[in-house]
Amino acid sequence: MALVVQKYGGSSVADASCIKRVAQRIVATKKAGNDVVVVVSAMGDTTDELLDLAQQVSPLPPGRELDMLLTSGERISMALLAMAIANLGHEARSFTGSQAGVITDSTHGKARIIDVTPGRIREALDLGHIAIVAGFQGVSQNTKDITTLGRGGSDTTAVALAAALEADVCEIYTDVDGVFTADPRVVPAARKIPRISYEEMMEMAACGSKILHLRCVEYARRFNLPIHVRSSFSTKEGTWVVSDPDSEGTEMEQPIISGVAHDRSEAKITVVGVPDKVGEAATIFKTLADAEINIDMIVQNVSAAATGRTDISFTLPTSDGPTALTALKKVQERIGFESLQFDDQIGKVSLIGAGMRSHPGVTATFFAALADAGVNIEMISTSEIRISVIVGQDEVDAAVGAAHRAFDLDADQVEAVVYGGTGR
Amino acid sequence: MALVVQKYGGSSVADASCIKRVAQRIVATKKAGNDVVVVVSAMGDTTDELLDLAQQVSPLPPGRELDMLLTSGERISMALLAMAIANLGHEARSFTGSQAGVITDSTHGKARIIDVTPGRIREALDLGHIAIVAGFQGVSQNTKDITTLGRGGSDTTAVALAAALEADVCEIYTDVDGVFTADPRVVPAARKIPRISYEEMMEMAACGSKILHLRCVEYARRFNLPIHVRSSFSTKEGTWVVSDPDSEGTEMEQPIISGVAHDRSEAKITVVGVPDKVGEAATIFKTLADAEINIDMIVQNVSAAATGRTDISFTLPTSDGPTALTALKKVQERIGFESLQFDDQIGKVSLIGAGMRSHPGVTATFFAALADAGVNIEMISTSEIRISVIVGQDEVDAAVGAAHRAFDLDADQVEAVVYGGTGR
Repeated sequence: MALVVQKYGGSSVADASCIKRVAQRIVATKKAGNDVVVVVSAMGDTTDELLDLAQQVSPLPPGRELDMLLTSGERISMALLAMAIANLGHEARSFTGSQAGVITDSTHGKARIIDVTPGRIREALDLGHIAIVAGFQGVSQNTKDITTLGRGGSDTTAVALAAALEADVCEIYTDVDGVFTADPRVVPAARKIPRISYEEMMEMAACGSKILHLRCVEYARRFNLPIHVRSSFSTKEGTWVVSDPDSEGTEMEQPIISGVAHDRSEAKITVVGVPDKVGEAATIFKTLADAEINIDMIVQNVSAAATGRTDISFTLPTSDGPTALTALKKVQERIGFESLQFDDQIGKVSLIGAGMRSHPGVTATFFAALADAGVNIEMISTSEIRISVIVGQDEVDAAVGAAHRAFDLDADQVEAVVYGGTGR
Repeated sequence: MALVVQKYGGSSVADASCIKRVAQRIVATKKAGNDVVVVVSAMGDTTDELLDLAQQVSPLPPGRELDMLLTSGERISMALLAMAIANLGHEARSFTGSQAGVITDSTHGKARIIDVTPGRIREALDLGHIAIVAGFQGVSQNTKDITTLGRGGSDTTAVALAAALEADVCEIYTDVDGVFTADPRVVPAARKIPRISYEEMMEMAACGSKILHLRCVEYARRFNLPIHVRSSFSTKEGTWVVSDPDSEGTEMEQPIISGVAHDRSEAKITVVGVPDKVGEAATIFKTLADAEINIDMIVQNVSAAATGRTDISFTLPTSDGPTALTALKKVQERIGFESLQFDDQIGKVSLIGAGMRSHPGVTATFFAALADAGVNIEMISTSEIRISVIVGQDEVDAAVGAAHRAFDLDADQVEAVVYGGTGR
């Protein structure tokens, strides 16, 4: 008998009929002989509706109270889901994050899980019950106040609970069939990835793939917990996120590149004419860190010998742009840079693949494909298994498509080249 | 500095603007130098909407899950109220029933409070915060599951919390100015009662007055906690419910009758032709008790000597009628009664007044007034401070009006007769 943790997002439990359908799926998993723990998000637009209510009473609601408010969303969906399961003749018990032992720090709105003590969940499983747990929420260790985990919170709850319960798998249900080699809305020939490593999935998440949140994959990697990303609308196999995707006895060559991710949510700031002295860059990034701004890519040009000055460019979430510009303006005189440029018409395109490690020509192929597609590269950043470039926002689609083709990822190419027509 | 517990019902927090208005009222109480604890119900129709959702997924949802679902209602209202107060520059902290230490038994849907341990509320008050507590909910002592208190639950939460905190007063805010001598929709000349005893208020509640629930008044009496029932739409004094309403230094004579209550929610069952043997009535009421039916009034006629048979009539909530009839049908043969009659076109009219104890003529005056109004009395029941009669449902209004006038309760009469034109 396996222990399966399943996570259903807001769109999977958007209304009563969705909830009944999910209940059937859960009961089927139970009937197949598994112990089942289900993590559930708030129904459809509930969270947005609650945020709207909060805005109506206060422009800047206290984090503690906002968390108290928002956690009512999962309370509703989990109770309804437990009822729907009971109506199918199975015993289900719903538990809040606090009841499920999700212990966090006290950072309201984006709390971090620091411990999971799922005693009540184990008891429920021992009694043969299906346990339904509220995603996205926990209880602060110090203040005993209710907290929320922020973006990707329900996925993180599911993975953390699965790790604490030593589950066999954490199934993340979504409205697509799995993780794709590129966003199918951009590349219609994109193909579902059957298996991918934690590292690659983390790079995908960090580079704009929205299907799994970085935190949840990090957590799964730490506990070596398999994640199965799949559709709640079909019973097809989805994408397995595991430590070693090649281990499953397949003789077939893995593709060099697992996928192409893109991200249109960043902007670029260029600090123009920075005096080329030791420590000036440090001051700039210390200033930004103090303003709690997360920097992504950084490029510093070689300074022009004539002027003794250089330009420093970096990317950051577009929404942080105004804060960053304000913070930098304040230190302009002290640092002595000439001006600031802000460009929110950029996009990031990233190639991700563990195969890069052993295939040196990847960068050359990537850049040639971009050149052929007439795409100009503004910035470059690499890791061991990733190459990212910043391009003009209106060139993102072309760049993603070109890269996808250049590495033989298009569906018909894959069948022919990588999988030799096995039809898998 | 006084400690004030305030309770606001669902209509007082129906939307964002209502919540903001209530927040101002709470802040005003705090600014006047009081410690303030607020108990709040779910917003407007939230509970009905949640019940509707539950019905959509399950015709008979488990009590545990229904309680989990419904308690999200107060979670929303209390968090919004805390935000609205914060927006006025005051510190407020919201607490669930469980966090506030409302410990109950495990009877989902109508749990009883068995202890209140408001440690976190005291801490909040010590820090100068306003504490907002979810009404209607608690946590089961044995199972640690979330429970709800059933009808009148939020009032009971407020009174129980006020008692545990040794508050100076529990203010129950509602949409009317206080407790009236009769329902003003039936008797336009009805007058607000300034002060009333716990006993009288309990009789009022038991006899159909909906303004306070019986449980909450019982609880207040046990702890001798003053309740102040008042309108959330004005700052006028409402009705004080206290142990000795005459003690407040008023020289004026208290009225013999405090109020006239009525109730259209009951029906009457008559068991016709019961053999007049010892134990037959006991069998009938044992049968009803086993079916968990609450009986109100009972009348047994003197048996007709010729037949050796008698009729037994009793009243019960109309909604329990079918269950009661089914249960009695099953024992018809064993008891040997002739038939059952069911009448849901009845109403109960009750006179309540501690002054009855020392004024013997009350019953005669009451019945004469009903006779003058052409109202036929079907059943009679009395307590030390109450006289109730069952009349035809379409005669309830006339009976209430006649009794109200007969005991000089009409507003203009009161000014002239009881209060001697003091204008109070």
